[in-house]
Amino acid sequence: MYMYFLGTGAGKPSLKRNVTSIALKLPAPKNEIWLFDCGEGTQHQILASPFGLHKVTNVFISHLHGDHIFGLPGFLGSRSFSTEATSLTIYGPPGIQDFVQISLKISGTYLRYPLEVHEVRPGDVLHLDSWTVKIGLLEHNLSSYGYRVEEPPRPGKLQVDKLAQLKIPPGPLYGRLKNCETVILDDGRTINGSDFVGPSLPGRQIVILGDTRYCQGAVELAQEADVLVHEATFAHALAQSASDYGHSTTVQAARVAQQAQVKQLILTHLSSRYRPQDYGALLAEAAQVFPSTILAEDHLCVEIPRPETRGKRNPY
Amino acid sequence: MYMYFLGTGAGKPSLKRNVTSIALKLPAPKNEIWLFDCGEGTQHQILASPFGLHKVTNVFISHLHGDHIFGLPGFLGSRSFSTEATSLTIYGPPGIQDFVQISLKISGTYLRYPLEVHEVRPGDVLHLDSWTVKIGLLEHNLSSYGYRVEEPPRPGKLQVDKLAQLKIPPGPLYGRLKNCETVILDDGRTINGSDFVGPSLPGRQIVILGDTRYCQGAVELAQEADVLVHEATFAHALAQSASDYGHSTTVQAARVAQQAQVKQLILTHLSSRYRPQDYGALLAEAAQVFPSTILAEDHLCVEIPRPETRGKRNPY
Repeated sequence: MYMYFLGTGAGKPSLKRNVTSIALKLPAPKNEIWLFDCGEGTQHQILASPFGLHKVTNVFISHLHGDHIFGLPGFLGSRSFSTEATSLTIYGPPGIQDFVQISLKISGTYLRYPLEVHEVRPGDVLHLDSWTVKIGLLEHNLSSYGYRVEEPPRPGKLQVDKLAQLKIPPGPLYGRLKNCETVILDDGRTINGSDFVGPSLPGRQIVILGDTRYCQGAVELAQEADVLVHEATFAHALAQSASDYGHSTTVQAARVAQQAQVKQLILTHLSSRYRPQDYGALLAEAAQVFPSTILAEDHLCVEIPRPETRGKRNPY
Repeated sequence: MYMYFLGTGAGKPSLKRNVTSIALKLPAPKNEIWLFDCGEGTQHQILASPFGLHKVTNVFISHLHGDHIFGLPGFLGSRSFSTEATSLTIYGPPGIQDFVQISLKISGTYLRYPLEVHEVRPGDVLHLDSWTVKIGLLEHNLSSYGYRVEEPPRPGKLQVDKLAQLKIPPGPLYGRLKNCETVILDDGRTINGSDFVGPSLPGRQIVILGDTRYCQGAVELAQEADVLVHEATFAHALAQSASDYGHSTTVQAARVAQQAQVKQLILTHLSSRYRPQDYGALLAEAAQVFPSTILAEDHLCVEIPRPETRGKRNPY
């Protein structure tokens, strides 16, 4: 499972940072790509990524500003050139349906795959197979959402030491016990698998926010997430601009991460006024509040480890 | 005066060729950029070009297919970030007004400069200051236009030899005579400037076509143009595909150039199936019919010489 940053700039593209889009690669067996926002040029960024357009199955739109949606019609049209393209669903705020349908209609774009567009609202909970996506409201100058993606928990580990103590021999039997089946041994004993399986392992929790000023809604949605992606349009010195335009500073994003007790914060959506020589200072002021912070850049790929592997090594 | 190719691919972008857009830089004192089509990522291509978004004053849309218009909303929005942006006018087929206004409205995009959108029709003639733009109908699977841009003729040359023969001394007087004023000399003679000015020099004629199959409309619009930009989506071997999809082959484009007796043909809108190693063959099959042919590529800049300099050197 990894997160791939396709665009990490704010408002308008620069040569270094495209406008917003983030891909989330789900683990096997799902292996799908879920896209979060689709600013202009997202399909171009995907051309230089490890995956193809056809791998994207769901698109989640945080809000309707152009730098988050203007890549959608072109993405949909180009995806139709792939013979491998299967059905696609778009989730987003009210208005997204009109934008997609009118753009496709006026341009005479015919899609060779089924497309569904669902207008969603804060508080909605989507159940996508065994995955859950929760939608929270942020504070921007138009309706802006955060998405909390929850991986399903995995079954607990089989307690093989306990089985060995009871002299139950390893073999295909262990697979059935791990699935919590009840099994009768050759010696007549009845063994209930659920007595030998540890507690289920929690899935990963990923929270990706749209544009927002510092707000309590962000803190609530991000509670104890494994990864929080938060915008940081401005350095802390420009807190007034952030407030005026409904955006956040580096430090405000770090405070959300701290208060929500997330494990990892990733800052994105940087204003194009900042140059590579500014990035160190931007990261430092966030890290002073929340040390486990990364500053995203275009084509950054971040592996999201399973919780139990986290003690062994720090993959960041 | 030059033409700058921002996107030269067909249908969908590739890493080598973006979707269609061409910039025409008008000569001094106008110095404006006129844009022909605005596929997705045109604003990104402009970032890597010698001019800024604010220099574009007119946008001409050939037809409403996504690879020719999906960059328009983002281009308009980003142009608003420039404090130098003055008014902008878009010309295009019916439907372009809805696409622009609905995209801007749904995305809450506020423009800080005046925008006009004019829906135009084949046969329309636009008079933009002293420049003329004629609109012709092509043959595609939806209404597709070609634009013929005509530079105003320049005043003829002052015949200084003839003035010297009459012993009229050089000086500021010559400027007035060149402007065809009537001047009374110190010795009492009355000189009519227009008797000493040669015939006016023709302006340059540039024809840029939208997507089209081979058609008589293209030949008529391109008559004796200095430069013709014609699509060549397919190699000649795929003439059937060209016909099916309303596109042209290299050879068909060359035939239009030959029949219209243009001076220079530039091929663009190449299918992404072709790789750099194919370009030589594509060019060769067109050049066999019309030798003065160029195959465009992204960021190609073609100087368009004034007619009278053409005999001196071949700028191509």
